Amino acid sequence: MTGKVAVFGAGSWGTAFSIVLADAGNDVTLWARREELAATINETHENADYHPGVVLPPSVTATHDVEKAVYAADLVVLATPSQTLRDNLTEWAPYLPRTAPLVSLMKGVELGTLERMSEVIAHVAGAGPERIAVVSGPNLSPEIARREPAAGVVACADEQVAKALQSRIHSPAFRPYTSTDVIGCELGGAYKNVVAIAVGMAVGLGFGDNSTASVITRGLAETSRLAVRLGANPMTLMGLAGLGDLVATCSSPLSRNRTFGEKLGRGLSIEEIVGSSHQVAEGAKSCRSLRELAAGHGVDAPLAQYVDEVVAGNMTVSDVVDAMLERPTKAETD
Amino acid sequence: MTGKVAVFGAGSWGTAFSIVLADAGNDVTLWARREELAATINETHENADYHPGVVLPPSVTATHDVEKAVYAADLVVLATPSQTLRDNLTEWAPYLPRTAPLVSLMKGVELGTLERMSEVIAHVAGAGPERIAVVSGPNLSPEIARREPAAGVVACADEQVAKALQSRIHSPAFRPYTSTDVIGCELGGAYKNVVAIAVGMAVGLGFGDNSTASVITRGLAETSRLAVRLGANPMTLMGLAGLGDLVATCSSPLSRNRTFGEKLGRGLSIEEIVGSSHQVAEGAKSCRSLRELAAGHGVDAPLAQYVDEVVAGNMTVSDVVDAMLERPTKAETD
Repeated sequence: MTGKVAVFGAGSWGTAFSIVLADAGNDVTLWARREELAATINETHENADYHPGVVLPPSVTATHDVEKAVYAADLVVLATPSQTLRDNLTEWAPYLPRTAPLVSLMKGVELGTLERMSEVIAHVAGAGPERIAVVSGPNLSPEIARREPAAGVVACADEQVAKALQSRIHSPAFRPYTSTDVIGCELGGAYKNVVAIAVGMAVGLGFGDNSTASVITRGLAETSRLAVRLGANPMTLMGLAGLGDLVATCSSPLSRNRTFGEKLGRGLSIEEIVGSSHQVAEGAKSCRSLRELAAGHGVDAPLAQYVDEVVAGNMTVSDVVDAMLERPTKAETD
Repeated sequence: MTGKVAVFGAGSWGTAFSIVLADAGNDVTLWARREELAATINETHENADYHPGVVLPPSVTATHDVEKAVYAADLVVLATPSQTLRDNLTEWAPYLPRTAPLVSLMKGVELGTLERMSEVIAHVAGAGPERIAVVSGPNLSPEIARREPAAGVVACADEQVAKALQSRIHSPAFRPYTSTDVIGCELGGAYKNVVAIAVGMAVGLGFGDNSTASVITRGLAETSRLAVRLGANPMTLMGLAGLGDLVATCSSPLSRNRTFGEKLGRGLSIEEIVGSSHQVAEGAKSCRSLRELAAGHGVDAPLAQYVDEVVAGNMTVSDVVDAMLERPTKAETD
């Protein structure tokens, strides 16, 4: 089952996922924020800003025009930065097809409102849960763009919609599993960026694989605690959208969040890091929203709390290590 | 609470754990299989075969004499290769102190009998479950020997014994959590070597972090399935002795099991690999015993099965990839 897909966001993941959609047999129109990027993609069949050297399939075309992007689309994929989704979607909402499923590729929790991306979509687009889906998993976009074999999860509260989407996005290299646990997938995706910052901090301090593996383990436990409190299935966090995405992100030396943490661990200030890279890692914002979400639900979230304190400049990375080692020893699962 | 500890096995992990024990305040006698190694350790305060450059604490001495090793010991630690434990322990059993806890550092399942290490200890030493403990976790021995901060799990069916051991092995750099789930800790430790071989295969084929993260995720699910069937707590596999140990081993480019799998993935034969390294990875044996254990309990274990088939020379690594991609897509958690 294939058709016409509108993908909003020509960044790294939106572009890579367009290749999956095209390989799965869909016609794809990729909406780009910058008009000149859309023009260049159509001329060169390449998005050199994010995936230099990767030739886009002929069935992928780009546009900066929202009406053109959604024309004849029976599926809409959203891949904007998490913190700008609400503004973007408010602008696009009047043009969206009334019945097409809306698939979120985003991994974050909105600052202030503490809404997950599917909640923002529901409120802004006025869509019911049967129209809102999430794709997540161990899907580093450069590898997806190179068509290396990968697996992911497509989650929708309506299992039939999840199954229909599964066949829409199943390409020779990308193997999607279905789930009905939207909350678990979204929490796993958002939290993993915060954990990756913490892993980077340990690496920056010169610690080895034992320490980073411990941070990953405690990070996934923290993610599960909050996700389950919000209604997720704990098995989701054990799966591709939890453990899988977390391990891929924390293993990749190219991960923006891990690199950000590494610089903090080496003693650089936020100002120095932002000054040198011109971009802030997603987890540097999610740590605040996840910390507040956890606090609001009475869930202990030391990792989000410590990362937030370091990002805010209230603690150093060494302070965090001291604080963690000072906690009393106990049974592993209380 | 400290005392005298006999550590059997002066390999990489036995030696590193002796440092933890000494740092925690214990006197340690390290039994070495080779008499000349024991002599060299006592002369140089270094085990240069495994941890060159690491000075052993003065409270660690070595011997090849079993009676000297156990003299005055109120705690016995076993760190032999898994497949030789039964023979070794049969020889040592008459000399072991009658009431001292016996701690296993080993990670394997015996070929043929399919017994876990704690079961071999129970049968050979005639010890009850209240005397048998397991230490496991993300504990790559070179990092432990360098005293990098690490956490682990000490498990005993008797919670009071686990707590007593916790204080015996708690050093400034090593932070032990207690557990009563011996089975879960042992299965996590044994299975992770098999998963590391599979991860190495993916790396050897040139696949990236998405693929290895997927193998780790499916590997932990397979581990949990079998462990839970044998009576383990699923939370143990989510913890340091499951996920933590697995991620540390699979992340380390120095892991013997991962390296072994990488060579298989690059197309080398078992004969070529064994010929070049003079040692076989633990997982190359555990894949067979875990596969048989799973079959005997009606548990699906494709990863152990495929690794075993490749090690046995019945399948190539490419055959495995084809077999896995051919399976039908489905819901993630059935």
